[in-house]
Amino acid sequence: MLRKRHPPAGSKPGTLMIHECSESPVIRVMKYNPDKLEEFENVNACELTALLDDNSVCWVDVQGLGDEPVLREIAEKFSIHLLALEDVVNVPQRPKIEHFEGHTLCITRMVLSNHVGIRPEQVSLFLGKNFVLTFQERAGDVFDPVRQRIRNLGKIILSAGPSYLTYALLDAVIDGYYPLLEKFGEQLEALEDQIVANPRPENLPQIHGIKRDMLTIRRAIWPQREVINEMIRDENPLITDNVRVYLRDCYDHCVQLMDGVETYRELAGGLMDVYLSSVGNRQNEVMKVLTIMATIFIPLTFLAGIYGMNFDVMPELKMPWAYPVLLGVMGATAIGMILFFRRKGWLGRGESETPSILPKGDRM
Amino acid sequence: MLRKRHPPAGSKPGTLMIHECSESPVIRVMKYNPDKLEEFENVNACELTALLDDNSVCWVDVQGLGDEPVLREIAEKFSIHLLALEDVVNVPQRPKIEHFEGHTLCITRMVLSNHVGIRPEQVSLFLGKNFVLTFQERAGDVFDPVRQRIRNLGKIILSAGPSYLTYALLDAVIDGYYPLLEKFGEQLEALEDQIVANPRPENLPQIHGIKRDMLTIRRAIWPQREVINEMIRDENPLITDNVRVYLRDCYDHCVQLMDGVETYRELAGGLMDVYLSSVGNRQNEVMKVLTIMATIFIPLTFLAGIYGMNFDVMPELKMPWAYPVLLGVMGATAIGMILFFRRKGWLGRGESETPSILPKGDRM
Amino acid sequence: MLRKRHPPAGSKPGTLMIHECSESPVIRVMKYNPDKLEEFENVNACELTALLDDNSVCWVDVQGLGDEPVLREIAEKFSIHLLALEDVVNVPQRPKIEHFEGHTLCITRMVLSNHVGIRPEQVSLFLGKNFVLTFQERAGDVFDPVRQRIRNLGKIILSAGPSYLTYALLDAVIDGYYPLLEKFGEQLEALEDQIVANPRPENLPQIHGIKRDMLTIRRAIWPQREVINEMIRDENPLITDNVRVYLRDCYDHCVQLMDGVETYRELAGGLMDVYLSSVGNRQNEVMKVLTIMATIFIPLTFLAGIYGMNFDVMPELKMPWAYPVLLGVMGATAIGMILFFRRKGWLGRGESETPSILPKGDRM
Amino acid sequence: MLRKRHPPAGSKPGTLMIHECSESPVIRVMKYNPDKLEEFENVNACELTALLDDNSVCWVDVQGLGDEPVLREIAEKFSIHLLALEDVVNVPQRPKIEHFEGHTLCITRMVLSNHVGIRPEQVSLFLGKNFVLTFQERAGDVFDPVRQRIRNLGKIILSAGPSYLTYALLDAVIDGYYPLLEKFGEQLEALEDQIVANPRPENLPQIHGIKRDMLTIRRAIWPQREVINEMIRDENPLITDNVRVYLRDCYDHCVQLMDGVETYRELAGGLMDVYLSSVGNRQNEVMKVLTIMATIFIPLTFLAGIYGMNFDVMPELKMPWAYPVLLGVMGATAIGMILFFRRKGWLGRGESETPSILPKGDRM
Amino acid sequence: MLRKRHPPAGSKPGTLMIHECSESPVIRVMKYNPDKLEEFENVNACELTALLDDNSVCWVDVQGLGDEPVLREIAEKFSIHLLALEDVVNVPQRPKIEHFEGHTLCITRMVLSNHVGIRPEQVSLFLGKNFVLTFQERAGDVFDPVRQRIRNLGKIILSAGPSYLTYALLDAVIDGYYPLLEKFGEQLEALEDQIVANPRPENLPQIHGIKRDMLTIRRAIWPQREVINEMIRDENPLITDNVRVYLRDCYDHCVQLMDGVETYRELAGGLMDVYLSSVGNRQNEVMKVLTIMATIFIPLTFLAGIYGMNFDVMPELKMPWAYPVLLGVMGATAIGMILFFRRKGWLGRGESETPSILPKGDRM
Repeated sequence: MLRKRHPPAGSKPGTLMIHECSESPVIRVMKYNPDKLEEFENVNACELTALLDDNSVCWVDVQGLGDEPVLREIAEKFSIHLLALEDVVNVPQRPKIEHFEGHTLCITRMVLSNHVGIRPEQVSLFLGKNFVLTFQERAGDVFDPVRQRIRNLGKIILSAGPSYLTYALLDAVIDGYYPLLEKFGEQLEALEDQIVANPRPENLPQIHGIKRDMLTIRRAIWPQREVINEMIRDENPLITDNVRVYLRDCYDHCVQLMDGVETYRELAGGLMDVYLSSVGNRQNEVMKVLTIMATIFIPLTFLAGIYGMNFDVMPELKMPWAYPVLLGVMGATAIGMILFFRRKGWLGRGESETPSILPKGDRM
Repeated sequence: MLRKRHPPAGSKPGTLMIHECSESPVIRVMKYNPDKLEEFENVNACELTALLDDNSVCWVDVQGLGDEPVLREIAEKFSIHLLALEDVVNVPQRPKIEHFEGHTLCITRMVLSNHVGIRPEQVSLFLGKNFVLTFQERAGDVFDPVRQRIRNLGKIILSAGPSYLTYALLDAVIDGYYPLLEKFGEQLEALEDQIVANPRPENLPQIHGIKRDMLTIRRAIWPQREVINEMIRDENPLITDNVRVYLRDCYDHCVQLMDGVETYRELAGGLMDVYLSSVGNRQNEVMKVLTIMATIFIPLTFLAGIYGMNFDVMPELKMPWAYPVLLGVMGATAIGMILFFRRKGWLGRGESETPSILPKGDRM
Repeated sequence: MLRKRHPPAGSKPGTLMIHECSESPVIRVMKYNPDKLEEFENVNACELTALLDDNSVCWVDVQGLGDEPVLREIAEKFSIHLLALEDVVNVPQRPKIEHFEGHTLCITRMVLSNHVGIRPEQVSLFLGKNFVLTFQERAGDVFDPVRQRIRNLGKIILSAGPSYLTYALLDAVIDGYYPLLEKFGEQLEALEDQIVANPRPENLPQIHGIKRDMLTIRRAIWPQREVINEMIRDENPLITDNVRVYLRDCYDHCVQLMDGVETYRELAGGLMDVYLSSVGNRQNEVMKVLTIMATIFIPLTFLAGIYGMNFDVMPELKMPWAYPVLLGVMGATAIGMILFFRRKGWLGRGESETPSILPKGDRM
Repeated sequence: MLRKRHPPAGSKPGTLMIHECSESPVIRVMKYNPDKLEEFENVNACELTALLDDNSVCWVDVQGLGDEPVLREIAEKFSIHLLALEDVVNVPQRPKIEHFEGHTLCITRMVLSNHVGIRPEQVSLFLGKNFVLTFQERAGDVFDPVRQRIRNLGKIILSAGPSYLTYALLDAVIDGYYPLLEKFGEQLEALEDQIVANPRPENLPQIHGIKRDMLTIRRAIWPQREVINEMIRDENPLITDNVRVYLRDCYDHCVQLMDGVETYRELAGGLMDVYLSSVGNRQNEVMKVLTIMATIFIPLTFLAGIYGMNFDVMPELKMPWAYPVLLGVMGATAIGMILFFRRKGWLGRGESETPSILPKGDRM
Repeated sequence: MLRKRHPPAGSKPGTLMIHECSESPVIRVMKYNPDKLEEFENVNACELTALLDDNSVCWVDVQGLGDEPVLREIAEKFSIHLLALEDVVNVPQRPKIEHFEGHTLCITRMVLSNHVGIRPEQVSLFLGKNFVLTFQERAGDVFDPVRQRIRNLGKIILSAGPSYLTYALLDAVIDGYYPLLEKFGEQLEALEDQIVANPRPENLPQIHGIKRDMLTIRRAIWPQREVINEMIRDENPLITDNVRVYLRDCYDHCVQLMDGVETYRELAGGLMDVYLSSVGNRQNEVMKVLTIMATIFIPLTFLAGIYGMNFDVMPELKMPWAYPVLLGVMGATAIGMILFFRRKGWLGRGESETPSILPKGDRM
């Protein structure tokens, strides 16, 4: 939950907490202008400045945060503030945007779904006049479609400058949440069907788990919405006006995701009520069976007990028709009980009298 | 819930996701000025510009989103931004308003009730200087009364320009929610009556369903309220001042709908409590019957058991009046128990002592 | 709940929905200035303009909304906008204030308590330079004290112009909610006493009913507060500055009513908990009686069953002191059980150890 | 709750509702400047103006609201608006501040704790250029320490003018809530201890009572916070700048009280959960005892019943070792059951495995 | 909760409440500039002014609040307002920032974890042009790393002036909350595991305790966030612009802590539901065992009771095969019951059909 790698209390600001199992940084550079595209793999940190060039956009992508000197060298090359570097390395930070001289820092969190499960990862993005510098915790990201668009020499992206690239990356991050939410939606529907039909004790931690995950996703998306909103509103010269139109689209997606998260949270809360009540209904049924059995047989057993007594003088015992009469009385008592229960509505079950007005498949 | 047709993460903005079973677009045009009304069915996309004319209002109504080239052609004719077209096609979007050069995009969601059920559908409306362009997902809408008013050569609508037509369409969309909410109101009242009288397990998913639907309707109406509010407040030259008065009326309707939705949600929440408690009351009654039967007969059965023992020396067995005395003791015990339960209030049921002050039919 | 009389979806704005059982409008006029008071009953709509006069205040009171031509004629005489007339007739509307040229429309909702119950009714008030025009749904209102003050030739009211009359009418409307809320307060206290002492199944719908009514009253008062607030803040030349002081007083009353409504809602919510828990406590008690009876007698009955068996070789049966010994063992078992239950605290009931610090009558 | 003494609906504004058992007003005056202090008891209302003097501060303290002519005379002497006087007399009003020409009205609510309980009372304070005029409902207040400071010729208070006196009185009112809240805190802690150890039915109305009282105290303090805040922010020439520093301190106390009230409300809500669950736990225990007893003895009693039957041919009855064997079987069955219950965890009770990390006495 | 040491109601402002067991103040001074560092232990209050010097930063650290004359002397030396001194001494105050002429007061609350538990303590900090003056309740604090950085002659801290020192101290206070929250996180996870596996009555007060502690921590952090925010926004000349960048970092940490606290609160609330429901599930299981045992054996015992009766004429008793037939019937009845229960799903337990989509270790 709150596993921020924070330096010991009171440390000097700018202290980097490199986790021992972090991957070594691998630097990839894509340098493009409307006419030309160059790609460099495994660039050395000290060569970075040489690549920058006023007529091209340079996307420097650093994957892995495991080597402090390299990170410090990159920071120095791009004049990154110590505190900004600390936010890049001491993950996870809350998504936020911060302006420094010459560049803007934008921290977001992406989710990666692969064969083993979901993996959240912080992406720190620096937007400069002619570069975009991204830091990722590990190799592997959601940016391949963006790379593909550049390699396909997409007109818009090649000619639109670094702020458009920033938008494209943010949009890829936000889009990555849709499949996740859809999975939760399916899970909720499956749970609902099961709980109404046959609630089970394990449903409870499942609902709790969904509520917890919604809480976490909300905590991830909410500040990203703020980040994008601030990008749109700010008088930041690094962001061009036509990119703001695109960012507005991205903002809409964030709002839609938040809408979905809130809806799922409320639905999960409602499911909890349905679960609790379904369990109560089943317990009710158990109680009814017990009550019916006990109530029918307890008086009959008492009657049998009476005539099992050994008193010398019990005139009924001598009468030849007493036994069949008693059996008759017992049968009548039992039938009376059953009729009483049926009148109470505890036996037999009618049909629902309030059929749903809206057929299920048609809900909005 | 979140079944937005979104392109694969990281796609180029403007990618259209045409669903394979979408209907082919059918274009209808109504062109009118205070003096004249012309209607064109099945217009070809390439003829559209020819129809536009500065002295008339042109309502271009596109029903069906199934043909990408046609849609792109229409977009080109009306200089629609790529992102705007994406919002039109990749339904459902959150209702919103967006301003572009030369026109304003307004996305709303209407509900259609027909014989098979409720069907929500996105309506995307472009308001230009001399045209209104609407996109609908399928044939069939709530706009027939508006068409009728135009065909009747209604004075106000024919002379009031495209912004009045926009208002009329939005108003028809909003009005379409009233019958829906009224149905839910009736359903809630029926549920309430049933739950107080005789709660049933199937009431629970019904309440849950109403809460879920209220959530969905709120998510549809809330942003539409914002859309209309922004229309009223904005300095948009496309909207004339006298239309703003009408939009205020439309805004009032939205607020009233939201009021209703919120009230129904709180009522549904309250019904859940009533349901749970009614179920508890019935279980209580079951328990009481069990307790009364068991408590009365268990000691009696024990007494009968005592005198069913086979000890050689049990002096009572020899006494001739022992049997009737025991029967008397048993009867007295039973009567004592019954009196005890009556004193506890478990037997017999009094009248309500707190009659409601407000007679039901008169509630506000 | 949402029984607004709304015209069919998509109708022309300004369509009036006259309910077939609406009363015919009866027009009463009070015309006064500091020197003179004239009253006219059953005025004809077409004579109204003749009565207006710059040196007097004219209160035109229309009771009954059942005749469309008359209403349209009045509207025409006072230049009332079509949409405003629609709001007057298609009741109930949400309370609101709206400014038109030459007059201000203010829609409020009054409650009338009479011998048969509570009746809510919309009052629509137009404030002009020299007139106040009110529309009511039916005959009978809460304005008699205001009329009395005018007839008594009260100095303040006769000399203070139409905006003071508006204030006086609004104040009468707001004051009408106090007795209603007081009744609910008494009902809540009675319910609380009964629920603590002896909860009954019918208490549940009663609590639910109070919560529902509070919801409705809140929906009525909240927008009226906004109406009055806007009157105070607005630069409306029709409202004189010294009337604003009085409106502030009226606003305070609204806030106080809202306070009361919110408090009652929270109290009703708390009562629900108390009710549920009281029911749980009683069920607990039922369970304890069952458990005690069963636990005491079940082993004893077993013992009796043992010696009721017919084995040939059961040496105890031959011993002469076996029967009294067994009875003794049974008694000892029963006493042991009772002591065990007493230790568990299931038998006997102590005194409360946490007496309330604040005596009940002294609560704030 | 809402026992505001309000005049009949529609009365003339300024109508005073004198309660028949109100005390007669007793007027006390303290007049001081840095050099001199004069005190007057039982001043006559008509002499008041003579006492005012530009070089001294005059604190006119009116205790008792039972005599309308006297109150009206005081109001006239100090040029108090009719509506202001109405707020003074028709208690209780919501705490508020209002500015009139020449003076400011500030309505607060103090709590008095004496031997019989808590008594809330409205204090209405008028702050003028050279006077402070306070109205109280009855004799007895929380202002004695302020009087003492004046009598002790405290330097600050004697030289600081009427706005400092106003602060001192408000501060005394606010400070009076601390002991009240502390009592509630102790009550909550006692309740918590008792509920965890041994929940009782009477705890429920106690929790409900605390929640209700918190609601009432919040309604009293919240608007007082607003009153003081407005005093600090307003450009009121009657309040000197150095007094604003003191008012800020007073504001901090209000915020701290609100903090406490909110915390207590949430704690009381949590206690309700703990209570309900503790009751559930105890019921669980009752159920377990019943289940264990019944489950062990029911099959044994059945076995005994078998061999109590009177069939002629029951070979087991003749076998001499059948009786001891049956007893053995019965014992084995019972032991098996007990082991089964122990495995289920229904018998015996382990130690808590999650000891609290924070020792109780050290909570923040 | 609300154990603020407040003077008796109505006391003169500035009254100090010295607790009898407060420690005597011990004054430590660190005086440094980029070139030089001097440390003084146990400084006498009257020597303090001599140490101040325009070219150095002087950190005066007062530990212990037990001696009123010393405190008043320090206050006088630094021209501290009486009300400010009251806030320093009458702990605990709500964290806040206040500006006085020549210095700014900033009240925060730190948490100290040591071997015996958690100890909250108020730190009052005065920031002046060339000094920082801190007051602590007792010896022992979280500032040792800051002292160490100064002693290590850290370049940034030595050259950055008193506002940087203020930041460093605030940052140390905020960082002290991280380990505390991490402990709570671990506790919550342990509780969750235990409650799902095996809920125990003692879990309930544990959850309640966590909720209560979260409430308290929130009340401590929330106003500190406001304090830092105001520092960043204010035009305070005592805070240099480059320090604002650092404060922004500190503000981020506060927001992150609040995020965590809110999440833990919601999780604890969810755990309460899981607990209650788990308890309900177990009770359900108890009920089922009881019902199954009773339902199976009650009819069998009745049958045995029938043939234990002593009627003279009971033909079945004479039939030689009646006994084995009856035993067969009894066995068949029991098996029938068991099959019925199995069909009801009360016997045997299937596998979960809705496995969680997200593996637990991978949650975000």
